[in-house]
Amino acid sequence: MNQTIDILRSHRSIRKFTDRPVAQEVIDELVQAGQAAPTSSFIQACTLIQVNDPENRSKLAQYAGNQSYVVSAPVFLVFCADMQRHRLACEMHDQQMLSGYTEQFVTATVDCALFAQNMMVGAESLGLGGVFIGGIRNQIDNVTRLLGLPDLVYPVFGFCIGYPDQDPEIRPRLPLEVVLKQDRYDDAGDRARIDGYDQLVREYYAQRSGGGKNSAWSEQIADMLRKEARPHMLEYLQGRGFLLK
Amino acid sequence: MNQTIDILRSHRSIRKFTDRPVAQEVIDELVQAGQAAPTSSFIQACTLIQVNDPENRSKLAQYAGNQSYVVSAPVFLVFCADMQRHRLACEMHDQQMLSGYTEQFVTATVDCALFAQNMMVGAESLGLGGVFIGGIRNQIDNVTRLLGLPDLVYPVFGFCIGYPDQDPEIRPRLPLEVVLKQDRYDDAGDRARIDGYDQLVREYYAQRSGGGKNSAWSEQIADMLRKEARPHMLEYLQGRGFLLK
Repeated sequence: MNQTIDILRSHRSIRKFTDRPVAQEVIDELVQAGQAAPTSSFIQACTLIQVNDPENRSKLAQYAGNQSYVVSAPVFLVFCADMQRHRLACEMHDQQMLSGYTEQFVTATVDCALFAQNMMVGAESLGLGGVFIGGIRNQIDNVTRLLGLPDLVYPVFGFCIGYPDQDPEIRPRLPLEVVLKQDRYDDAGDRARIDGYDQLVREYYAQRSGGGKNSAWSEQIADMLRKEARPHMLEYLQGRGFLLK
Repeated sequence: MNQTIDILRSHRSIRKFTDRPVAQEVIDELVQAGQAAPTSSFIQACTLIQVNDPENRSKLAQYAGNQSYVVSAPVFLVFCADMQRHRLACEMHDQQMLSGYTEQFVTATVDCALFAQNMMVGAESLGLGGVFIGGIRNQIDNVTRLLGLPDLVYPVFGFCIGYPDQDPEIRPRLPLEVVLKQDRYDDAGDRARIDGYDQLVREYYAQRSGGGKNSAWSEQIADMLRKEARPHMLEYLQGRGFLLK
């Protein structure tokens, strides 16, 4: 429909990068594009840590489950949901901040994701590519220590950025009828739709050079969800001052 | 730097719309652009409810704290974080889904926000505008009932879309040095930076036609955070099967 929508619809995760460096001015420009995203009640709760130190990159790659592109990406950033800044704002006006609310956790987390997606789109519009790294939540305590994050700040996900040295295909998404409902939630018919989609996903993996996975979407999901999902997260977050009430 | 980055950096919330309708094909296209956003472990946990029924729109506007544009917007959508679909996927493979993890809540919520921001950017690239409505979490129980949401699905925020009938200025954001840190979290100097920014925000409100607010950023934040933040959220979410462990 237009160039921007073409960019949005062409997203693929990029994990292999050329040696071409990314200028700091480009990163700054992308961060400012991120900041321009909507921010609930003007809260601006996202802080980015740009990790340059090679040793720290290695540690982060290991914490994320040995994801080597955390080291090899020209730029690596960590998106942090940050309510520490708001405590400072309260102090500036001698106000006691009421913190620990689940609502604040939702708002700050959403804030980071909106910010991050603007950066991803901006990067792709410049011919860059990247991938978000949720794996940093594997050892989130170690990540927190390494980056020196205070209370009321947690690392949501990382972001590898660089010039792509691979050209993966776009993974097909669920049928529109599964994700868009009219007036009420109604999943009658979704099982059949997911069956059809599973076939599409199998074909995608079969055709993809290199192969690897060949399971359908519902199989991948079922395989993932019969296992525990980072069971340390609740205790960790409560220890940082989130999700207490 | 290019047209897409111009769009990203020109975002303003739009709450007043012309009568020009938005074709369903345009909405469908935007939803597909939303689907193309990154999705952690291919989870695709976002479901949209498009609310057409005028009576339901009125109720939602009221639940959101009498936000009239929920009624007057040509299109109103609710982004839901949805793990019910994953339960279905597990059933399709006779797997027991382990649910209730905070990690899953984070992943599904982030998924919706990435999806939503792609839609916002896509809409703006087509000359549309809109605003996200976190206010639907004011009476989230009533919203859940009205939309018929099952367990493991919660409404994250709403989205008003239409052709703009207003042209608000862009609100200035925090200085880059406050949101982008190198290698470690370091907020020394942020208080002075926020002082300077506060002055900028005051000028923005003073210059804005219509006026209204004239408080600085830190004042708005301090004023908001001395109050409780939707204290029903934790109990609500746990009742829907989230944040249990």
